[in-house]
Amino acid sequence: MKKYVLGLDYGTLSERTVLVDIETGKIDAVATYEYRDSVIDEYLPGSDKKLPNDWALQNPIDYLNAVELTIAEVLKQVNQDEIEIVGIGVDFTACTILPVKKDGTPLCMTDEYKENPHAWVKLWKHHAAQKQADFANEVAEKRGEAFLPRYGNIISSEWAIPKVMQIVDEAPEIYKNADYFVEASDWIIWRLTGELTRNACAAGYKGTWHKKDGYPSKDYLKALNPVIENLYDDKLCGSMVAPGEKVGNLSNEWKEKFNLSGDIAVGGPIIDAHSAAIGGGVSDPGTMFMIMGTSTCHMLMSDKEVLVDGISGVVEDGIVPGYYGYEAGQAAVGDIFGWFVNNNVPAEYQKIAEERGVSIHDVLSEKASKLNPGESGLLAVDWWNGCRTPLVDAHLSGMILGLTLNTKPEEIYRALIEATAFGTRVIIELFSEKGVKIDRIRAGGGLTKNQMLLEIYADIIGLPIEISASEQASALGAAVLGAVAADQYSTISDAVEKMVEPPVKVVTPNIEKNKSYNKLYEQYKKLVDIFGRDENSVIKELYKLKG
Amino acid sequence: MKKYVLGLDYGTLSERTVLVDIETGKIDAVATYEYRDSVIDEYLPGSDKKLPNDWALQNPIDYLNAVELTIAEVLKQVNQDEIEIVGIGVDFTACTILPVKKDGTPLCMTDEYKENPHAWVKLWKHHAAQKQADFANEVAEKRGEAFLPRYGNIISSEWAIPKVMQIVDEAPEIYKNADYFVEASDWIIWRLTGELTRNACAAGYKGTWHKKDGYPSKDYLKALNPVIENLYDDKLCGSMVAPGEKVGNLSNEWKEKFNLSGDIAVGGPIIDAHSAAIGGGVSDPGTMFMIMGTSTCHMLMSDKEVLVDGISGVVEDGIVPGYYGYEAGQAAVGDIFGWFVNNNVPAEYQKIAEERGVSIHDVLSEKASKLNPGESGLLAVDWWNGCRTPLVDAHLSGMILGLTLNTKPEEIYRALIEATAFGTRVIIELFSEKGVKIDRIRAGGGLTKNQMLLEIYADIIGLPIEISASEQASALGAAVLGAVAADQYSTISDAVEKMVEPPVKVVTPNIEKNKSYNKLYEQYKKLVDIFGRDENSVIKELYKLKG
Repeated sequence: MKKYVLGLDYGTLSERTVLVDIETGKIDAVATYEYRDSVIDEYLPGSDKKLPNDWALQNPIDYLNAVELTIAEVLKQVNQDEIEIVGIGVDFTACTILPVKKDGTPLCMTDEYKENPHAWVKLWKHHAAQKQADFANEVAEKRGEAFLPRYGNIISSEWAIPKVMQIVDEAPEIYKNADYFVEASDWIIWRLTGELTRNACAAGYKGTWHKKDGYPSKDYLKALNPVIENLYDDKLCGSMVAPGEKVGNLSNEWKEKFNLSGDIAVGGPIIDAHSAAIGGGVSDPGTMFMIMGTSTCHMLMSDKEVLVDGISGVVEDGIVPGYYGYEAGQAAVGDIFGWFVNNNVPAEYQKIAEERGVSIHDVLSEKASKLNPGESGLLAVDWWNGCRTPLVDAHLSGMILGLTLNTKPEEIYRALIEATAFGTRVIIELFSEKGVKIDRIRAGGGLTKNQMLLEIYADIIGLPIEISASEQASALGAAVLGAVAADQYSTISDAVEKMVEPPVKVVTPNIEKNKSYNKLYEQYKKLVDIFGRDENSVIKELYKLKG
Repeated sequence: MKKYVLGLDYGTLSERTVLVDIETGKIDAVATYEYRDSVIDEYLPGSDKKLPNDWALQNPIDYLNAVELTIAEVLKQVNQDEIEIVGIGVDFTACTILPVKKDGTPLCMTDEYKENPHAWVKLWKHHAAQKQADFANEVAEKRGEAFLPRYGNIISSEWAIPKVMQIVDEAPEIYKNADYFVEASDWIIWRLTGELTRNACAAGYKGTWHKKDGYPSKDYLKALNPVIENLYDDKLCGSMVAPGEKVGNLSNEWKEKFNLSGDIAVGGPIIDAHSAAIGGGVSDPGTMFMIMGTSTCHMLMSDKEVLVDGISGVVEDGIVPGYYGYEAGQAAVGDIFGWFVNNNVPAEYQKIAEERGVSIHDVLSEKASKLNPGESGLLAVDWWNGCRTPLVDAHLSGMILGLTLNTKPEEIYRALIEATAFGTRVIIELFSEKGVKIDRIRAGGGLTKNQMLLEIYADIIGLPIEISASEQASALGAAVLGAVAADQYSTISDAVEKMVEPPVKVVTPNIEKNKSYNKLYEQYKKLVDIFGRDENSVIKELYKLKG
């Protein structure tokens, strides 16, 4: 009997389940389920009442249907007599949160509240609690709350406290009648095992929980709104579990449904992005994992907890138990290149792309790859969507310097890629200055398909960049957690060593180009100082003048 | 008998002659002559020896052919019995200079030298004397030559001294055997009248001549090269004439050729751009004339001589006798918009333009005209071709700030137009700070066809912008000089009042928009300081890193 684990990967639009060989990490079966109600941002199911702007809800039934249908589907793809399922791991978007009754029934599934939008799951990208987030930040800053610097001094409107505050403000009856507010990841674990726990990853990164200090104080909550003074005691219960820590076993009800036998351990879940770090092979200090897509998320483990400017969060046990997990971010990366291709590339380039059956990105990359560092005379700063780490200023904007009558589109394209690499280098140096060492970079995500981009990053950062092998890193990461929960490996690192393939390639820096880029980087840092750190910088005034 | 004057307008590719009614300024006949040898930048006529890069020569025969053919042609268009030609005026490109024998024969027309490229006319845009210009500047700066600040501290490679120095360096036999070096404008006047004079406009703006201080000293010339110590005494002779000052009468030889009778006065010539100011109706202090095309040239008269940062020149009698004529410049204006349209506008906009049968400029202007000042959050600095006035730095480059994922091409297009208007406002304020008052702007040139651009300029500058009526301002300006030389008017101002039509329209500033732009202008000036005035600015370092 070959031993297997299931990795359940809950994304924004669908859930994917992988059946993974516990010894090799090989994915032997995959099934996905597209949520029937997808992202609910216009009308509640069966309703014709329009939701306000910036809302984003989900239907928890979709999460349960996903379990039922995808597990059955992957089991169909193998000979069930020859395999043994020993564990289940889960990753989930966060903060994706829902109000439930004591028995776990979501309020949106009760007749009483199903027509109240606040009774539904608030998806991570529900952005309608900005007012509450602003107030939470203001009060935290005034009171000098110690948790604030752990999150770059900004609580996002996506996080638990603003989302709950919005319910208190707009639907007090929901707040009152909800026995608990639960992360969707914890809720699905509860449904699988019958145990209500909270996971350190979502609680830490999105719920302002700290392993030693706990949650924000009652005084702080009272200052936000006396109604929520006892929020954590009353409505955010459950013991804390680290990713992969065993929560319990899969309930008999589910086992019967799938015709499974024996104990099947279920591990503490993790946020999807953080799971990708593990599935990408990063489970120890020294390697920074970057998920490079429309934006870039940087994850890193360390033995120590230090405060780093503008990080998204530092959470003990947040990614791998025993380590402090750091998360930093660049608010736009692939989005900038997409903006350029959509808005600033002439017809002639589109024609070349069409004739050759390639993308405009390919045409630009081919031309841009012939350029040397500094040759174009261009330098850009990558703030097209503001700056997350280190400045935490959503109102900053991008710039391009060095334009001449001879400047070509491919030169600007390359300068934009370079700008995002400079932005990454700033983050790496920030960690290094604080004693959090980074020896190498591991990258995953769509942008890693662009070889020129990888070379530019390696040359600018001056470190080798390893490209993650798995195209399903999040799901594989979840499977690793299942294997650890099932006690097949004693640590996540041990499991990763066996279950995650080595990088498909390593892009090493070119020493000469790195030297050239060091000079350009000095100029980039000057621009960060001039425009990012000065309170009355031209960029900041331009934002004010937009009115 | 109706009185007429002829205006001869020598441009870069062709000469245009206008026959102008002396009382009304109406152009009753026009003829043009395309130079047969055009701009000689590859091979000398009849030769297969390639010219080096950056060379630009002309054939003086073309200038004579132009006189012969175009005057005959305009006279054919009228009833010669009913008209009387009383004067001739000339405008010409400059510094366009040729070596000649004592009798005026160009060396390139002698068998001995016709195969030597240095014997030919060096056109204004001959750029092969940069090495000599650099040295002339270096020596002038070291010696603290008083003439240097009158030219923004830079002698251009286009001017007389570098062009003659190149001949001394590369063809000493030509220098030795040339009796004179003559501006083409003075040469044609010599051919028309038999009188060798020098015109204050070309001598002042391109020949470093000053009405009180004269030419640069022998010591300076000796420091450049002992061979040219006596350049001005020996080879740059002829009394100085102001524009429109009578040089003499048209020679009998020409009169017979055209079957003309009576005295026909020929006036001191002027540079073509400066002639456009007169033909555009500007002949007194208070109004700045802008020729707005690929670049912009600013002209202005004043009673006083002051040193203004980075102007192209200040010359007493340089445009209108009795006034100090100031010339300033922006190195790229329409060129920037052209660069944008060629390199940064997506296929979708080109399609709209094609479908509607308009230009991409039209499509962008229509969209951009709906925007309010500051609304896009963008700000650009217009240094795509360096900065002439006030910074005189060809190595500066352009920049765009405030870019976001929502930035649209028309927003950038508008920001570029605004940037050039901010650049003009800097020049205007520079003059005002020095006590050279500017009450209104008169504009001519191709860009004045863009109504949105005119409104943006008026709103940013805060002054009415009058649009010059004449599409042939240079030629009309030359005709004005002929009328003054013929004593039909006692001053250029009197002649302009009668002969130049009032502006076709006046674009007045919108007070509210002007107020908004004042705030953006403050930010523009900050960028000029940060990047233009600091010796180690990012922009200057980027240029150095280009290598």
